[in-house]
Amino acid sequence: MKSRKDIDKKLEELGKLLYKEIKEGKNPYLDVPIRSLSNVHFNPKTKLIELGDATSKRYFFNVAHIRKFVQTLEVAALAKELLNVDKHLSLRQVFYAMRKTLPGTKIDIVDEQTESNQAVEDLELITGASREELHINANKNGAAAGKIIIKDKGDIIDWSKLGSGGWAIPSNTEGIEFQKVDAKFVIYMEKAAMWERLHEDRVWEKLKCVIIASQGQATRGIRRLLRRLNDEHGLPVYVLTDFDPYGWYIYSVLKFGSIALAHISRKLAIPEAKFLGLTAEDIKKYKLEKQKIKFKEVDLKRLSQIKEYDWFKEDKRWQRQFKLMKEMKGKVELDALITRGISFVSEKYLPEKIKNKDWID
Amino acid sequence: MKSRKDIDKKLEELGKLLYKEIKEGKNPYLDVPIRSLSNVHFNPKTKLIELGDATSKRYFFNVAHIRKFVQTLEVAALAKELLNVDKHLSLRQVFYAMRKTLPGTKIDIVDEQTESNQAVEDLELITGASREELHINANKNGAAAGKIIIKDKGDIIDWSKLGSGGWAIPSNTEGIEFQKVDAKFVIYMEKAAMWERLHEDRVWEKLKCVIIASQGQATRGIRRLLRRLNDEHGLPVYVLTDFDPYGWYIYSVLKFGSIALAHISRKLAIPEAKFLGLTAEDIKKYKLEKQKIKFKEVDLKRLSQIKEYDWFKEDKRWQRQFKLMKEMKGKVELDALITRGISFVSEKYLPEKIKNKDWID
Repeated sequence: MKSRKDIDKKLEELGKLLYKEIKEGKNPYLDVPIRSLSNVHFNPKTKLIELGDATSKRYFFNVAHIRKFVQTLEVAALAKELLNVDKHLSLRQVFYAMRKTLPGTKIDIVDEQTESNQAVEDLELITGASREELHINANKNGAAAGKIIIKDKGDIIDWSKLGSGGWAIPSNTEGIEFQKVDAKFVIYMEKAAMWERLHEDRVWEKLKCVIIASQGQATRGIRRLLRRLNDEHGLPVYVLTDFDPYGWYIYSVLKFGSIALAHISRKLAIPEAKFLGLTAEDIKKYKLEKQKIKFKEVDLKRLSQIKEYDWFKEDKRWQRQFKLMKEMKGKVELDALITRGISFVSEKYLPEKIKNKDWID
Repeated sequence: MKSRKDIDKKLEELGKLLYKEIKEGKNPYLDVPIRSLSNVHFNPKTKLIELGDATSKRYFFNVAHIRKFVQTLEVAALAKELLNVDKHLSLRQVFYAMRKTLPGTKIDIVDEQTESNQAVEDLELITGASREELHINANKNGAAAGKIIIKDKGDIIDWSKLGSGGWAIPSNTEGIEFQKVDAKFVIYMEKAAMWERLHEDRVWEKLKCVIIASQGQATRGIRRLLRRLNDEHGLPVYVLTDFDPYGWYIYSVLKFGSIALAHISRKLAIPEAKFLGLTAEDIKKYKLEKQKIKFKEVDLKRLSQIKEYDWFKEDKRWQRQFKLMKEMKGKVELDALITRGISFVSEKYLPEKIKNKDWID
């Protein structure tokens, strides 16, 4: 993570550059990387969905550019203020903070949140700082438990001593310091109910690990947390989802990044993430065929989309899963393993899968 | 909360009673309170949405009854097992645990989760124990921070020393012991982003309180937590929502209970809860008229429904809010207070409202 001082300096440099151009009688502009699909690609070397090099110049004296130009500067000014007072706002709150009338006019700087959101993303690209480093937070969700002690806002927090609830993961996990990491790996799961089941069985103690869940897609805060544990402490990240196109999409985003956030894949995505969720082979092995939930039209459509993703297209193991799911015409939830016993996931499924390296990576 | 032993005994008594009837050659039956709208009413004395006394007999030897009869007994057996091994399942997991074929037949005990959900609710009514006491958990969501120390699963947890994330609230808060309560009141808010803003400003330290949020409607775990803090420690519960029919509905459910969970209002609802969210007067006072979000058809419809609720119908202060909102034809979010300053809610709005007792109760 870049320091507050570094980011502040970057914002100041941006301001000084524009000021210089104005003083020299030039038409000031911003060089903004293009975020449209044409500039997004999958990089087979890094295994990440990345933004290309294409940029476009956004001029102040250009009727088509000026609105976005002003919005980007307004969010830069706001970010500088947030850094100076060391406070954070959510995207929604940033929208309100920017929703004001230009002095001497009847024009509001932003009318819709999509405008302020885009300005934030542009500023991320221009400065190379993430939204979180600019003190603008995304959603808060999720909980963590396990063999890790962190320091956050001056508090020492032991993730193994937080009762049945665990530690609530903040929207912004940049500032967290890992004080002691006794865990050998991290399990991320898409459902809080499964997290509670595993937590009650103290899986993190028995397998010496950390368990993290949100609800569905992982928040940016969770993605950074997983990425940092992988980067800074070399912990493998196992992703536990249903046998389901949506579960696979959650895994896909965690591992390869997403098109919408391609500009930040290098900070958020975890190319080493491993899929530990249900496979077609597990369904057979654990006799879960009866627990199948029949596909709707929308599931089939989702499956055929995922099958064509660049990062899955050449992967035989994944193509095999897609093919077998198509034949089954249905999905199976992880919770279905409850039919094998209340603690089956904790005592059999996870230890065996991990011992046998029975994952897809 | 009833002890595990008490609940276990109740389940055993239920089994013994049915066994006796079978041995005596009778047609065994369950006496199940009726949960349809006809048996739900608002009680002006308790200020709660309650279930009436009407019950219906569900017989074993009755083709129309037997399926539900068996489902209810199956969930009773499962709850007894969960109590005995001291483990918990979610509603979804209960569905899978019950989804098995009756020996010697091709009939599954449950086909859809609505069936197992209803069986759980019936068992709650028959035993007088809540779902949580039967070791069946609802959703997990939300975070807490503030001047309280709890004991949970043997861990001592200080809600004032958990960094930027706070304590993740479990789905089941029955087992929590309050060890030290230094807080004077609790603020519940509907949005995690506002919670993070207030937490960063350490509002709970300055105002000596506890702040709790989930996302939207409070989970059962949060409702029990708020209720217990109100009951056991006399803490006032302030509800902070948008000026919005949906925000009011969140408040309404917290305070009066809901029709769907009328049978459990006496455990979940908080008749003393006070509304601390934005009012029409606040919007004028803080010049938020410009931040209005125009109503859609669906918002207007929601407003006219809420206006007619028995518990709001006679309340002049609420009817005034409804009338003023209808005239405004729009809603205003709490986040709009950011236009007045990053820490305006922490430093002005909340302290002033609470000092002046400027709430609706």
